[in-house]
Amino acid sequence: MSHPIIFDTDPGVDDAQAIAIALRHPEIELLGMTTTFGNVDVETATHNALLLAQLAGDDIPVAQGAACPMVKPRHPAPKHIHGDNGLGNIELPEVTGQADPRSAAQFIVDTVNQRPGEVTLVAVGPLGNLAAALQLDPAITGKVKNVIVMGGSIREGGNVTPVAEANIFNDAHAAQRVLTAAWPLTLVGLDVTHRCVLTPAHMARIESAQGKLGKVLAGSYAFYREFYRGALGIDGCCPHDSVALAWLVKPELFTTAQGHLHVVTEGAAEGQTLFAPMGRKFIEERWSMTPEQTVCLDVDGEAASNWIADTLS
Amino acid sequence: MSHPIIFDTDPGVDDAQAIAIALRHPEIELLGMTTTFGNVDVETATHNALLLAQLAGDDIPVAQGAACPMVKPRHPAPKHIHGDNGLGNIELPEVTGQADPRSAAQFIVDTVNQRPGEVTLVAVGPLGNLAAALQLDPAITGKVKNVIVMGGSIREGGNVTPVAEANIFNDAHAAQRVLTAAWPLTLVGLDVTHRCVLTPAHMARIESAQGKLGKVLAGSYAFYREFYRGALGIDGCCPHDSVALAWLVKPELFTTAQGHLHVVTEGAAEGQTLFAPMGRKFIEERWSMTPEQTVCLDVDGEAASNWIADTLS
Repeated sequence: MSHPIIFDTDPGVDDAQAIAIALRHPEIELLGMTTTFGNVDVETATHNALLLAQLAGDDIPVAQGAACPMVKPRHPAPKHIHGDNGLGNIELPEVTGQADPRSAAQFIVDTVNQRPGEVTLVAVGPLGNLAAALQLDPAITGKVKNVIVMGGSIREGGNVTPVAEANIFNDAHAAQRVLTAAWPLTLVGLDVTHRCVLTPAHMARIESAQGKLGKVLAGSYAFYREFYRGALGIDGCCPHDSVALAWLVKPELFTTAQGHLHVVTEGAAEGQTLFAPMGRKFIEERWSMTPEQTVCLDVDGEAASNWIADTLS
Repeated sequence: MSHPIIFDTDPGVDDAQAIAIALRHPEIELLGMTTTFGNVDVETATHNALLLAQLAGDDIPVAQGAACPMVKPRHPAPKHIHGDNGLGNIELPEVTGQADPRSAAQFIVDTVNQRPGEVTLVAVGPLGNLAAALQLDPAITGKVKNVIVMGGSIREGGNVTPVAEANIFNDAHAAQRVLTAAWPLTLVGLDVTHRCVLTPAHMARIESAQGKLGKVLAGSYAFYREFYRGALGIDGCCPHDSVALAWLVKPELFTTAQGHLHVVTEGAAEGQTLFAPMGRKFIEERWSMTPEQTVCLDVDGEAASNWIADTLS
């Protein structure tokens, strides 16, 4: 079984790993990449997406999208995590390809309409491009096969505030639009990505198997690893964005729940994802009035991490 | 070792169980009760506190306090949970005693100043009385021994909204004042109270051992049990407020963490408690600038529930 996907991304070290999976896995058909600000500015995201496809030898369309959030000013890029160039400040080869002339949102709308019922949107950055696509063509909610969002946190707490995960925090209004839209959506958040660790041994296997692409993945990993050593005290990295693809291909590794999502757009909890489990009654009915979605609450982290390394070696 | 406490309460079925423990446990010296709106209106809370002390044969001061939140209008009382009279709509004996003439806040300030360094405040309702005491005499932060708050939720989710617990939700501004004050405080929230179940067998033991007091506890329990059967699908009740006293007397049953607390006062996450674990870095330093407090994250629920039943039988 093959999964046709559009990968919406802000590469980013862990994005690069996931892009490599999307390019290499035999059950994933990568229709295109759409780019957004987030880990880096949007031009850098586009550059890195083009570069990674080129290193993999694949001519994949890359359409550039949101340069900033829908409503609020942009938060500074996390250069201490991903480096100034998004790939750990390693020296990078020249990019020869060019971006698709369409906006990310238009690319999404066109592609979904060409293959109604088939395409899964996998979004691993701030959600402005998906929100913009919903504005261009609200009917795509009935035409995508699935939406997978790497973002948010239900029980795990946040990584940029005590409750907010970075992708949602970086454009909470877009996230509120996307997570409450009437399409089938799974939230792959810190509850599961923090259970996964891509170890130096995993990365050594990937580097030796992936040629020029492996060099970039390993070099950027080395920088990202330093952040994890200091911030979380682990030797290895959480492969956040790859976990979204693990959900696509290996859902049996995950524990999920059904319920209703909301995003806090203002105040101390800004950027938090709120989850109202299906069937639970709260003080106001509005908590259970948004569409029913899926959230990942737990995962076999070792199996998911091994799946990443196995896919790339 | 004896623990002198002031019990701040809005009885309430589970409050009544905790009041019985505070009156009966040999290691707890109940200096007084202070009352607040919450599960019931404040007059009913005062009536019930006086009644429970009378049924236990103890002449304990009861000082009445907050009738409504500090800033916002009051949410309706949860009559479907505690009944119109706070004790499951059972017929209640006449109350003969009278409330202390002082306000709850003044009673707290006076009592703490009489025994500096000795008194633990155990608060199991909305936190207006503790906030008012801090306004009358900010120096009490250095004179209380400990503050124990039944309220909030760190990982468990809420009970009135997907993220907010009722006591904090009922006066989020007071909670923000109390949880960020520079006194040693432990939050005993839904993360632990939802692990505890007071079963019908427990209550049968309590009823047979506690005479007239036991009749009221068992009668109100029967009403409260119906709510739990419908809302959570369990046969039994979460003895929320008694768990705060279990923390006081049996802390070894609990798993805790240290960190910084905040309360959301506006917006979709209103009434949520935010916890920034000690040593974790977030995007802004302000998350780690409030005093370091303790939160309960897990408990041996069976042992804690048995401790409640054993104490009262």
